[in-house]
Amino acid sequence: MADKPARGLADVVAASTALSDIDGRAGRLSYRGYDINELAGSSSFEEVAYLLQRGTAPGRAELDQYRAELASGRETGRLAAADLAEIARRQQPMEALRSLVSLASADDPDAGSNERAANLRKGARLTAQQPVLVAAYEAARRGRDLPAMDPGLGVAANFLLQLSGRPPEPRAAEILDTCLVLHADHTMNASTFAARVCAATLSDMHSAVVAALGTLKGPLHGGANEQVMLGLEAIRATGGDPVEAVSSQVTQRLRQGEKIMGFGHRVYRAEDPRAAHLRQMSAELAAARGDDTYYRMSRRMEEVVFAEKGLYPNVDFYAATVYHYLGIPTDLFTPVFSASRMAGWTAHVIEQHADNRLIRPDSEYIGESALTWVPLDAR
Amino acid sequence: MADKPARGLADVVAASTALSDIDGRAGRLSYRGYDINELAGSSSFEEVAYLLQRGTAPGRAELDQYRAELASGRETGRLAAADLAEIARRQQPMEALRSLVSLASADDPDAGSNERAANLRKGARLTAQQPVLVAAYEAARRGRDLPAMDPGLGVAANFLLQLSGRPPEPRAAEILDTCLVLHADHTMNASTFAARVCAATLSDMHSAVVAALGTLKGPLHGGANEQVMLGLEAIRATGGDPVEAVSSQVTQRLRQGEKIMGFGHRVYRAEDPRAAHLRQMSAELAAARGDDTYYRMSRRMEEVVFAEKGLYPNVDFYAATVYHYLGIPTDLFTPVFSASRMAGWTAHVIEQHADNRLIRPDSEYIGESALTWVPLDAR
Repeated sequence: MADKPARGLADVVAASTALSDIDGRAGRLSYRGYDINELAGSSSFEEVAYLLQRGTAPGRAELDQYRAELASGRETGRLAAADLAEIARRQQPMEALRSLVSLASADDPDAGSNERAANLRKGARLTAQQPVLVAAYEAARRGRDLPAMDPGLGVAANFLLQLSGRPPEPRAAEILDTCLVLHADHTMNASTFAARVCAATLSDMHSAVVAALGTLKGPLHGGANEQVMLGLEAIRATGGDPVEAVSSQVTQRLRQGEKIMGFGHRVYRAEDPRAAHLRQMSAELAAARGDDTYYRMSRRMEEVVFAEKGLYPNVDFYAATVYHYLGIPTDLFTPVFSASRMAGWTAHVIEQHADNRLIRPDSEYIGESALTWVPLDAR
Repeated sequence: MADKPARGLADVVAASTALSDIDGRAGRLSYRGYDINELAGSSSFEEVAYLLQRGTAPGRAELDQYRAELASGRETGRLAAADLAEIARRQQPMEALRSLVSLASADDPDAGSNERAANLRKGARLTAQQPVLVAAYEAARRGRDLPAMDPGLGVAANFLLQLSGRPPEPRAAEILDTCLVLHADHTMNASTFAARVCAATLSDMHSAVVAALGTLKGPLHGGANEQVMLGLEAIRATGGDPVEAVSSQVTQRLRQGEKIMGFGHRVYRAEDPRAAHLRQMSAELAAARGDDTYYRMSRRMEEVVFAEKGLYPNVDFYAATVYHYLGIPTDLFTPVFSASRMAGWTAHVIEQHADNRLIRPDSEYIGESALTWVPLDAR
């Protein structure tokens, strides 16, 4: 056995993958060999989901077929639908998605199979359903019917339609599409790793993505984008010039040793390449909306955190204002992240099942030893 | 970054824990410093759950209070109860438990808190609820009402009561109680590790144990006990002398390179100490029932697998016949395992939250590199 624990498995190689790669020093991310800077703006989420799940960039006919598979997979299950109103009333968004996806296996004809063909079908269905479940949750908690889906729209545009009930502006749909591309996979992040640990017992894809959803929920992972927005709102609410308020409050918090959400990443030593795209989209949306306060606050926060700590913004930081400008409720930011990462999670389950080994680490024991059990009456 | 991947994290220390320790060469297991051979038969599941979750062996007053907390925590949530009939009809037992525990957070007043006091209360409630959910699932799928619980009975006896509707024989309850003690924790097994990966994002206890439930479901982990029983039944069904059939069929399968469920363990190089206790209880129950066929078949299988492969039975092997002789339906074996391991999972979440660091490993990239993204119309 190894003697020294790697706290948090930092720098420990836990698995091999052909899905994505990070060069943390250069600040590079690629999906199956394609640099994220090439994909952002030049590929659709559907192309990227296909690439991740099936291994190659789809041709026109393959993509049309996959889009049709996604559109027909948007029907959420009967069991989940029956409970939606009550779940939406009584569970937080990520709790609700954890429950709804767990229930959805009852309606999936491939739930019991880990065969590659079954996994590909489940991967498409889960990817198709996730944004619909998010919109359905929003509708249910507002006491509205879920707006009808439009089979002619892609994942991003259809999500905005079903979330708001109005056909989205084309540019808003493009920007959300790029966000989904940017969030689709990211090597062995905690939720993906949880999904692989689960799948490696030869458990099924639904179990693995339910594990991932619960993991993404955490504020040190997917929950960070929501925390970023709440932080900006809290600073703005203190009154005065919001950009100056960022300078004073963030400086003070950093000097008190507090952590600022949305900055730094275990793997990147340079800027997260996704952050650059998100920053640009945040600026564009701020200008289009005619209110760039949150964008200017974000820029200032970026400057202050870099000056004080040398930390770069991560994917969560500018995703917050982009989602905000797109009209997405703050507590649905992490669910939107999950709608994108579902493509990556399912692809990792397919990859894990194709060449499986149980993931079962050791632990270092740090408790007492060789104690004698005293019977209850003598204790 | 490390360059060499540890396939399946074998021998990699992923976390420190004061909960349990394994000496794989000596075949020793201890919980918080107490050898499992001292605990088995001399401690109740409630004492062990308290020990794991709260750190020390309870005194009489502490144990009485904890037992009362468990008894009052047996009420399952309203949201889970509302859907039980439909879930039981449409989901396999472990899928159903994954859904029911996910739904149960809606009824837990501490669902949103990771504070130690809240985690202790949730740990008790989840440990109390899990066997009741298993019995409730069984009742629902048989179209029966769940038999009323008896607050005077401990976890094991009350489970047998609610499962069958009849007060259990005292010795049967004692034996199940010892099974629950033996299965309560086991260092960084896959489901516990999934729970810790989840909790380390500062996600909540329900999310972590839902991840664990989906992971335990896998046939390479908790699902193995059910596979053992199905294997014994299949051999017996082929006719002829069942013990001789074990010899011929298992030998043949081993020589064809097949894996026999219930044998071998990544961590033990000697006999799993839990197996010895389970073997003894299986023998006792077989004698009491007056039909020791499955026990004799198991003994022969143990001899054959050791002779052919040098592998020892693991915890799942004799658990199968013990549960069978206790009248537990085969597809509820893994759920019964989960009712015990809930004590360990919740204790690991408490420990993880008390000294947290994100668990985020690296991966080795094995795919293509530096590909050029060709636009769709040129592909």
